[in-house]
Amino acid sequence: MQLDDQPPFPPPRRESPGRPSVPRVDADRLWRRHMDLARFGDSGDGGVCRLALGAADIAAHRHLAGIGEALGLSVGLDPIGNLFLRREGREPDLPPVVCGSHCDSQPTGGRFDGIYGVLAAIEAIETIAGAGIACRRAIECVVWNNEEGARFTPGCLGSAVHAGIVPLAAALELRDDAGARLGDDLAALAAALPRARALPLGRPFAAFVEAHIEQGPLLEAAGERIGVVTGIQGYRRSQIEVTGRADHSGTTPRSRRLDAFMVASDLCRHIEEELRDDEDLLRFTVSRFTIHPNSWSVVPGRATVGIDIRHPGVETLDESDLLIRQAAQARSNGCAIEVRTVSGADPVHFAPAIPDLVEAAARRHGHPARRMFSGAGHDARNLSDLCPTGMIFVPCLGGISHNPAEAARPEDLAAGAQVLLDVALDLAERD
Amino acid sequence: MQLDDQPPFPPPRRESPGRPSVPRVDADRLWRRHMDLARFGDSGDGGVCRLALGAADIAAHRHLAGIGEALGLSVGLDPIGNLFLRREGREPDLPPVVCGSHCDSQPTGGRFDGIYGVLAAIEAIETIAGAGIACRRAIECVVWNNEEGARFTPGCLGSAVHAGIVPLAAALELRDDAGARLGDDLAALAAALPRARALPLGRPFAAFVEAHIEQGPLLEAAGERIGVVTGIQGYRRSQIEVTGRADHSGTTPRSRRLDAFMVASDLCRHIEEELRDDEDLLRFTVSRFTIHPNSWSVVPGRATVGIDIRHPGVETLDESDLLIRQAAQARSNGCAIEVRTVSGADPVHFAPAIPDLVEAAARRHGHPARRMFSGAGHDARNLSDLCPTGMIFVPCLGGISHNPAEAARPEDLAAGAQVLLDVALDLAERD
Repeated sequence: MQLDDQPPFPPPRRESPGRPSVPRVDADRLWRRHMDLARFGDSGDGGVCRLALGAADIAAHRHLAGIGEALGLSVGLDPIGNLFLRREGREPDLPPVVCGSHCDSQPTGGRFDGIYGVLAAIEAIETIAGAGIACRRAIECVVWNNEEGARFTPGCLGSAVHAGIVPLAAALELRDDAGARLGDDLAALAAALPRARALPLGRPFAAFVEAHIEQGPLLEAAGERIGVVTGIQGYRRSQIEVTGRADHSGTTPRSRRLDAFMVASDLCRHIEEELRDDEDLLRFTVSRFTIHPNSWSVVPGRATVGIDIRHPGVETLDESDLLIRQAAQARSNGCAIEVRTVSGADPVHFAPAIPDLVEAAARRHGHPARRMFSGAGHDARNLSDLCPTGMIFVPCLGGISHNPAEAARPEDLAAGAQVLLDVALDLAERD
Repeated sequence: MQLDDQPPFPPPRRESPGRPSVPRVDADRLWRRHMDLARFGDSGDGGVCRLALGAADIAAHRHLAGIGEALGLSVGLDPIGNLFLRREGREPDLPPVVCGSHCDSQPTGGRFDGIYGVLAAIEAIETIAGAGIACRRAIECVVWNNEEGARFTPGCLGSAVHAGIVPLAAALELRDDAGARLGDDLAALAAALPRARALPLGRPFAAFVEAHIEQGPLLEAAGERIGVVTGIQGYRRSQIEVTGRADHSGTTPRSRRLDAFMVASDLCRHIEEELRDDEDLLRFTVSRFTIHPNSWSVVPGRATVGIDIRHPGVETLDESDLLIRQAAQARSNGCAIEVRTVSGADPVHFAPAIPDLVEAAARRHGHPARRMFSGAGHDARNLSDLCPTGMIFVPCLGGISHNPAEAARPEDLAAGAQVLLDVALDLAERD
């Protein structure tokens, strides 16, 4: 071999014609980006409050689009506010491999939930690009809009509209508790991203892969690094409205009251006890609770209760729903009680293709891994009927999430991003 | 007697030199004024929402001042926003006889609570003036500021500042839940009443008499028309802060949670049961209850509970307070619990002078009456140490109050106003 024949930079080495060599993600860069993003909606206590389509969330979208532009990715926005950063493939007409998650947070959110999946996707794309690898298919990073559902119910809205599960027109009319209309806030997002191309809803994907912190305690407790997610448990959300009678708290004897608080709290405790399971698998939470008028000298005339239930089994979910309705009838104590289902989804089982790739990649890099169900809901749920779909979990400290104390280790985040890179690179070459 | 000696109108007849004849109040006019006032803060469901120093409350103050001006009364405002409408006496330097109540309401208020005492006082003054009676002492109608305490805690604030129980400087710095400062809103009230004279705090009164709907069921149930109020039961308000840990509701097993809602609601039920008395005299109310972050997929990390307790006996109040604190320690279930006393007052017994006058006037007009304690707190509590003080109750429908359904009959309202007039006229001639 002669020196003159050498190119100025070595071409990417390939282990075999079909399998590109696997470049390594940059753990420091990935961590730094997490810290950068934590400034958007910084809650001052180590966490973030980045409610969907609020000012901090829109600023975070701008920041992410800026990263994409700096990397030469094309920036696109669909009508429900899902943001796409695309690295073009050798065959641009093929459906892309899509990776990502979301960047909105709960009111008491942490620095990793959602945004990790986005930054891991960017890290994978940047690493692949840095290695000079030209993939057959485009790879895109997606930032799904309003995943948390904390401001606009239901959550996973952007992916649900993409998948045709929720009609766009209905989504645009959603309002937050203060009466703000989602469609108006979407216009603000679009205005903040003036160079973004308008993308249609429902473009076909070759695959969807979402990296995420586990938000539960299992991986950490077992000393494992990668969760090979095989599906997502189902959930049911019910709103219970208890109507009693507002009375003067100083003059009305208890025997003459219709106290909505007392009836509602008794009902919650009863349901909580009835739904206890020995395996501690069923997740029962009274996550919303307000009383009206909430004033010192008034017996509460009305209480509104939100109950969130999750389980891997659809029968258990349906039985729980029924029990709530029966208990509400049996324990009204003179008040009027109305129960309505706010949202819900049956458990989802991913097709084996992506979980198998995730497990193989984890093994290749020597990461202890386990197959597991997701306790939390994710956008991957809405994609699983459209294309091969999977998720990659990494541990988080104490399983704590939706909390400013949410934490993860840089090496675990990097491990998950590396697995994501491996899987995306593989998928991007496939038919 | 010659015709020429007759004045154009007959002078008021007097039964005896010291006791003026008693002119009759106008029931229709009194009722009409209630309906007029109900437009300020009309909640559209038969009630009013006229929170202290909000726009509707300030507009109601303007309206009342306008009535006073039309009657030739002098309008005054003190530094805490108490409004006074004064009919001058023959001896202007003597302390006035003061009658009145308040015009703010609960968020779910009715058309009679508070405003009745104000309109009854105006009716009494207008009737006395219409009869051409020149009283020895001035008679004033007072509109105490922020009686309800629904927006700014504590309630009965205007009378408490007048009586020196709460320092003016501290009151001005109070803030509502949205962060608005009471002192700023007071400036808006003063600006809305540009012709009101500035009055000092704590002027001496000859007496204070407050007419009010009972806000309880006793008079109506007994077929009685006048409640001769002999005192006001005491109260204690405690705020309980439960701090658990916000966790993801889908991933965190119940055994690993510190669920602030569950601990708080269990505590409320426990206290409610412990404080049951056979006589149903003790008024126990969980009147405020909020959880944080109140979001669908988050285990509540924090709960704030407001408990209102009332009883005629100070020992029972103190024992109840102690029980709340002990229960909070014993039932924390891993959460941190903090209890603080927000406000309270011991029971008050009025000196017999005014109650005796009220009872005599009721008897004179043939109204069935009973001596009774007040279940609700009133501004009269704060006056009772300063001057002879009393209250006149009239029935309200079903005892319902702090509720848009609050209702009273025109003839009962007129009966109470007539008793008020009798008592005020008598007091205005005394030394």
